[in-house]
Amino acid sequence: MTELFDVHTPSDAWRKFTIQFQPAPRVERIAVIDSLDRVLAAPLTAPHDLPSFPRSTVDGYAVAAQDTYGASEGLPALLDVVSEVAMGAPASVPLDEAQCALVHTGGMIPPDADAVVMVENTQRVGRKRKNGKGGKEGQHSETLVSLLSPVSLFPSFSPFSIEVYRPVAVGQNVIQIGEDVRRGDLVLPAGHQIRPQDIGGLLALGIVEIDAAVAPRVAILSQGDEVVPPEQTPGPGQVRDINSSTLAALTRRAGGVPVTFPIVPDRLEALQDAARRASAGCDMLVISAGSSVSYRDMTAQVIQGLGKPGILVHGVSVKPGKPTILAVCDGKPVFGLPGNPVSAMVIFDLFVAPAIRMLLGAQPVAKTEVPARLARNIASTTGREDYVQVRLETRDGDRWAVPVFGKSNLIYTLIRSDGVVRIPQDSNGIAQGSWVTVELH
Amino acid sequence: MTELFDVHTPSDAWRKFTIQFQPAPRVERIAVIDSLDRVLAAPLTAPHDLPSFPRSTVDGYAVAAQDTYGASEGLPALLDVVSEVAMGAPASVPLDEAQCALVHTGGMIPPDADAVVMVENTQRVGRKRKNGKGGKEGQHSETLVSLLSPVSLFPSFSPFSIEVYRPVAVGQNVIQIGEDVRRGDLVLPAGHQIRPQDIGGLLALGIVEIDAAVAPRVAILSQGDEVVPPEQTPGPGQVRDINSSTLAALTRRAGGVPVTFPIVPDRLEALQDAARRASAGCDMLVISAGSSVSYRDMTAQVIQGLGKPGILVHGVSVKPGKPTILAVCDGKPVFGLPGNPVSAMVIFDLFVAPAIRMLLGAQPVAKTEVPARLARNIASTTGREDYVQVRLETRDGDRWAVPVFGKSNLIYTLIRSDGVVRIPQDSNGIAQGSWVTVELH
Repeated sequence: MTELFDVHTPSDAWRKFTIQFQPAPRVERIAVIDSLDRVLAAPLTAPHDLPSFPRSTVDGYAVAAQDTYGASEGLPALLDVVSEVAMGAPASVPLDEAQCALVHTGGMIPPDADAVVMVENTQRVGRKRKNGKGGKEGQHSETLVSLLSPVSLFPSFSPFSIEVYRPVAVGQNVIQIGEDVRRGDLVLPAGHQIRPQDIGGLLALGIVEIDAAVAPRVAILSQGDEVVPPEQTPGPGQVRDINSSTLAALTRRAGGVPVTFPIVPDRLEALQDAARRASAGCDMLVISAGSSVSYRDMTAQVIQGLGKPGILVHGVSVKPGKPTILAVCDGKPVFGLPGNPVSAMVIFDLFVAPAIRMLLGAQPVAKTEVPARLARNIASTTGREDYVQVRLETRDGDRWAVPVFGKSNLIYTLIRSDGVVRIPQDSNGIAQGSWVTVELH
Repeated sequence: MTELFDVHTPSDAWRKFTIQFQPAPRVERIAVIDSLDRVLAAPLTAPHDLPSFPRSTVDGYAVAAQDTYGASEGLPALLDVVSEVAMGAPASVPLDEAQCALVHTGGMIPPDADAVVMVENTQRVGRKRKNGKGGKEGQHSETLVSLLSPVSLFPSFSPFSIEVYRPVAVGQNVIQIGEDVRRGDLVLPAGHQIRPQDIGGLLALGIVEIDAAVAPRVAILSQGDEVVPPEQTPGPGQVRDINSSTLAALTRRAGGVPVTFPIVPDRLEALQDAARRASAGCDMLVISAGSSVSYRDMTAQVIQGLGKPGILVHGVSVKPGKPTILAVCDGKPVFGLPGNPVSAMVIFDLFVAPAIRMLLGAQPVAKTEVPARLARNIASTTGREDYVQVRLETRDGDRWAVPVFGKSNLIYTLIRSDGVVRIPQDSNGIAQGSWVTVELH
């Protein structure tokens, strides 16, 4: 194959790929309570103000602020408490001058009130106000509990009077209508991946269903005469299939639905047939073959026959992972991954996961990265991106990244490591002690 | 309640809690291919060496290294290729002096060989060796393809001879038996959360089932006369229940199975009854009530009645989130969370998620944290941990954390923010421009 050594940088490779691959996500309607980690297909705006009524942020008395102006310990304002706002009930009682209503945290503010005095800054008339600082429960806690608890538990209200020791400003201790979100505001953009708090935010507005991107089906094909299913005991020269399941788990993590197939023997017709059938039922095809040249040639030949335009990139200047194929065949992305597990995972993160996110129409997500100091020199070659597996260790209060060297055929290199350090293509290495960014895996 | 203002620091609170709560995870047997993100209940050791036979890392010829010593371009070693090692087949053919076997990447090394010569460093005798640098495909690629591909595809082998232009050392281009992992080695420790590559590593050893911690069932109770189900249009003074679903999603993320219940009205007997029934079927109980003192008192009273030792901490020096209850009732953890959504999420991350991970027997996982510069001053109070919601923005090439201020009753504070900055209790604030760590949510 002429493409074999026509190597591209990762960014060039991705550019060539994305010129040909510009998918429109498929959309399905789902319940918001089942939407964790799903990707929003369309922007959402608020259908109404939130909150839709003014609410108290404290336990206290809803007042007209001007009735409290000038109030102090020495000269308290005297107010009549003419009603209690029950939780979940409209606060419709009119308040005349020097009248107020008992209100609980989250309760509605009556139309004639514009602020709330905290119960701690009041005293019920006729009760002795505690003044000392010695009490374990604080200055006013006894008052507060004895005053409020019974009222809330037994909602038969009798009017009483209070002294207010501190003025409040208009709006104080009140959440205004629309203060959380205004009607018509953009609530979440298209492509947003739903977090726990987003579920709460949508439900607060009565949005109980959303249009979400359908998780793309990713066909995963493993090939090799030497490969046997994991539950089988391999004979001499045989190994268990591990790439199918590892790639399936990586696919799930990226937001796709993995579809795995039986191992394909090393015959061109068998791989052609399997690739066609796998591709037909899925949105993307990932072929993980062996690493010998003959395998790679066969994979390339099969991919080239799957549709137009076919192979876009064959060979990427990445270590490990050079013998990678990026293709688009009749609108579907097709990837030929190196057979070595370490290379396969590096290439999955570089190209397959981003392609899955394109199919989801998803915005980029933050990667889990931590800073660490490099525990030994790493040499590299300019013109090539290197991905070095590292283990994290804490020494002398610093976090260190210890390179886990090993041939890229060794799966346990990935298991003994906590993440990966990228060495850019214009670098010829990184010196021991340097701070690097470790992307956790 | 006397506990109301008997406030603990977060670390003291956690200490008091964990003295009483030392769970043993429940265990179930699961398939490794379904084990992504599950927690391993017992350490796993390798049942055999991996690989279990020596394998080639390249396409080439399996040789006795000494047959190549001294070989050079000017004076190549001449070897007879007496067989091909087919993929997945034992390599049992004996090799005499100056004999070798054609081997593919991943193929088995015959017992009489101890190294592999790369095909690029050889030439088939009788073929003309290309020597120029002008060829687009590189020096030896044509040779390599024409030599290997047909052999692999049509396994009828005829002996031939090669010239070797470079010596190899013993072991070169070979993965030795046990080089990936040795029989008896610790493969993964108890408490490890399974990653995609771990699935591959276990399957490679034929480990197809593991003992995993059973995901704990977390009962989530929301209370409040003002709270209506999200699909219902709230009347004046009413709000939709958002905490149940937000806490359910946070529970799922932490590795638990959320079990939600209908909203409980504001009556002591109703909450007592609901709490008892919810607690009975679950491993943990989370009660999210309103934020008024009367609600909080009721929650405390109900929790105290659920079992011994009962409430351990009532009040934590955290903003937001002070009115938090940590309890253990007859062996089960019970949490009383503040009703405000921002506070509830801070407290969930601080206490509930770690308690779920204790029930899983899970090792700590790395949080998703990014460094950023603070876009404005944040004031704080010593003696209290502050959690400030921030939005991330890139300006002038730096990442900035922009505080999203808002009362803790505003759910959209959490939606407009990307993460949270913790201000330690011994700090009275952080100056604009300082580098801070943002924990993403």
